[in-house]
Amino acid sequence: VSLESRLRSIVGGAHLIVERDVLATYQRDWTGRFHGEARCVVRPADTEQVASVVRECAAAGVALCIQGGNTGLVGGSTPMDGSVLLSTRRLDVVGDVDSVAWQVTAGAGVTLAGMQRRVRAAGLDFGVDFAARDSCTVGGMAATNAGGERVLRYGATRAQLAGAVAVLADGSVLTRMSGLPKDNCGYDLTGLLCGSEGTLGVITELRLRLVPLLRARAVALLAVDGTAAALDALRALRESLPALEAAELFFPAGLDLVLRHGDLPAPFPEPHPAYLLVECADLSDPAEPLLDAIAQLPGLRDATTSADASGRRKLWAYREQHTEAISAEGTPVKLDVAVPVSRLAGFVAGLPGTVLQAAPTARTVLFGHLAEGNLHVNVLDALDCADAITEAVLTSVAREGGSVSAEHGVGRSKARWLHLSRSAAEVAAMRALKRALDPAGLLNPGVLLPDVQPS
Amino acid sequence: VSLESRLRSIVGGAHLIVERDVLATYQRDWTGRFHGEARCVVRPADTEQVASVVRECAAAGVALCIQGGNTGLVGGSTPMDGSVLLSTRRLDVVGDVDSVAWQVTAGAGVTLAGMQRRVRAAGLDFGVDFAARDSCTVGGMAATNAGGERVLRYGATRAQLAGAVAVLADGSVLTRMSGLPKDNCGYDLTGLLCGSEGTLGVITELRLRLVPLLRARAVALLAVDGTAAALDALRALRESLPALEAAELFFPAGLDLVLRHGDLPAPFPEPHPAYLLVECADLSDPAEPLLDAIAQLPGLRDATTSADASGRRKLWAYREQHTEAISAEGTPVKLDVAVPVSRLAGFVAGLPGTVLQAAPTARTVLFGHLAEGNLHVNVLDALDCADAITEAVLTSVAREGGSVSAEHGVGRSKARWLHLSRSAAEVAAMRALKRALDPAGLLNPGVLLPDVQPS
Repeated sequence: VSLESRLRSIVGGAHLIVERDVLATYQRDWTGRFHGEARCVVRPADTEQVASVVRECAAAGVALCIQGGNTGLVGGSTPMDGSVLLSTRRLDVVGDVDSVAWQVTAGAGVTLAGMQRRVRAAGLDFGVDFAARDSCTVGGMAATNAGGERVLRYGATRAQLAGAVAVLADGSVLTRMSGLPKDNCGYDLTGLLCGSEGTLGVITELRLRLVPLLRARAVALLAVDGTAAALDALRALRESLPALEAAELFFPAGLDLVLRHGDLPAPFPEPHPAYLLVECADLSDPAEPLLDAIAQLPGLRDATTSADASGRRKLWAYREQHTEAISAEGTPVKLDVAVPVSRLAGFVAGLPGTVLQAAPTARTVLFGHLAEGNLHVNVLDALDCADAITEAVLTSVAREGGSVSAEHGVGRSKARWLHLSRSAAEVAAMRALKRALDPAGLLNPGVLLPDVQPS
Repeated sequence: VSLESRLRSIVGGAHLIVERDVLATYQRDWTGRFHGEARCVVRPADTEQVASVVRECAAAGVALCIQGGNTGLVGGSTPMDGSVLLSTRRLDVVGDVDSVAWQVTAGAGVTLAGMQRRVRAAGLDFGVDFAARDSCTVGGMAATNAGGERVLRYGATRAQLAGAVAVLADGSVLTRMSGLPKDNCGYDLTGLLCGSEGTLGVITELRLRLVPLLRARAVALLAVDGTAAALDALRALRESLPALEAAELFFPAGLDLVLRHGDLPAPFPEPHPAYLLVECADLSDPAEPLLDAIAQLPGLRDATTSADASGRRKLWAYREQHTEAISAEGTPVKLDVAVPVSRLAGFVAGLPGTVLQAAPTARTVLFGHLAEGNLHVNVLDALDCADAITEAVLTSVAREGGSVSAEHGVGRSKARWLHLSRSAAEVAAMRALKRALDPAGLLNPGVLLPDVQPS
């Protein structure tokens, strides 16, 4: 009996996919950069079916690729040729919101937006949010420790996890769903699975922490003298505004593209060296404390604020339209990196020069999440130098003690650069953990850990 | 050459201790319940010396016990007979406070109070605090994922870690000290080491997240109808008071002992079924919002509040004198457990009966951290039934999906009960991780993982 037959008997005929045209929608990531030929797609309905699928694949010695919403940016959920692609999308049950513990149970295949609707109806919210919310799944968010714009206030996805159910490579099921905020009974397996990118287990269910739903919001766009000035402003705002939730940095190069390709008016009469977008959210209107705090900031070049929803959206648009505006100029080389905030100003100042050495015609457009020193590096007009640019930028990131993958993960695309941010001892420890939980290397091979030892 | 000689050559003669009377101070925990005969105590001065010590012990096949401030409650840092006791107390360097990133670097041997002094002088604070602050070390806090009274607001120690340096069993050194809030380059080794109780590595240095220093505080003591009413009050207060920092629960049985053995006046004219102590901390005086929120609470039986320091201390004393008052009555059986808050009221109601079945003469005194369902169970007049009481209480905790160790850790004392809170699959996964990083079992043997398989 073939593996496909055995998988079909677990999930039912409708959920074992071998048709080439249907497979195609699973086999390529949405950026189109990553692709692999899966032998089939299997869509289990619950944890028990996932465990059976994993056991059958293990018995057959066939690798598994685990895919949620397929919104990743690093090829972490596109299959190796010949592997079984396990889609978590049918694991889409959301439990009742526990308004005493501020928690909810969600299947790995629930979309972020679907979960948000449920918890907001109960007067609560989830601490992580970003643009892919309608497609990305909470299981994928946990597997990649997804970040976004609220990390400043709530941390990344790992900080939102109160528990998980996961299937290990041997088909055994780890269940830790009591959601206890204090539970010091051994190793933090949930935290270890989070960010392991499907290489240590298949997350099937999550117990998620929730935060208060804060509807009173105010946004300010500040014009400042540069990155150092933006950091000074952020420090002062954080000290006086506990309601601060986002602090986004961008520059004239990016704003120019946004203005050229969209229909937004210039935010200020003249351009400025850097822009800082901040948002406060609170139970009561945060506009006044935000205005007070801004009035105290020394050296501000200009500022504009808004507390009503449409005005807030307009200010956010200057930041959010960056990705689209950059793509309208051409296909960029994109890198997601972070450096310690104490090194950020120097790094930003040096980056265009670093890029130009690798690609003399390149234009560098930067924006990012200021509080975490997380920069999205976009390089235009230099696609043919992509490798040299990547090498140059990531090497300079490493020199500053930074991360070659701040929030997108390692996936397939950055595995060969992992050694820039992780020492040989760290990679060896990770390999030992991988061998301990998946000795045959069946879960997401090629993702995260490079096949060759780092030099 | 003996192992002692080789260790002496690493740390210097003054820091290799073999004298019986000096050893004695390291070999017994402060509760006096745990004791073991170490062959020597070694006090390395830095990470490099720790690595050398670990390598020498590994080469000799001699087990290591790692000890910080020796303030643990579960025997996690008392030695196995014949092991080398590695004291981290000389790793006591605190770095400059990074007021941009809100972080500080501290050696594992720095006391919590010592670190607090440094960061408070820079206008910041640490998110975890508890009574052992003058003796406990930040390394021990990380190794045990220490909790305390602010977990409601800031989470336990794991949530405060931005990085760590640790020596593994093979003497290799993991270094992740950039303090990047976003750094998705593989497995969360820092989070895995946190709470591993010295069984996976020796933490030598930490990069700690800091929080704003909030000097404006207000405390209220609320008299309520019982545990369910306390949870209703807490839910309402959390929704309206972002500044809420602590919510402590106690009962008439404990308050009676506090009043009998101390010199506090009764807080209210008459006794009430349960008491809830709450504290708010903010940049501006939180007294008015706290009073407003309390005024909105339905069904409150009585309340008293204080915003000045001495009044706050007096209200806290009702809760903090519980431990002393209980000890003044006799030696209690003490258990640190948690149940999901949705089960807490039923669990509290049933607990005295559960205890009486195991020990007909026992008096049960409960208090704890309400938001986490974390109860400190104290049983008086039944020391000869300690095992039966422990068995009965922990079994009933497990029945509710609770934790047999909420914040104190597993150590030696609870290893045999681990299977009540962790499934066979979870224990097997933990064993696999332990074998992966410490195949010879040299780090803290006997702690956390039981020697026998769970049933």
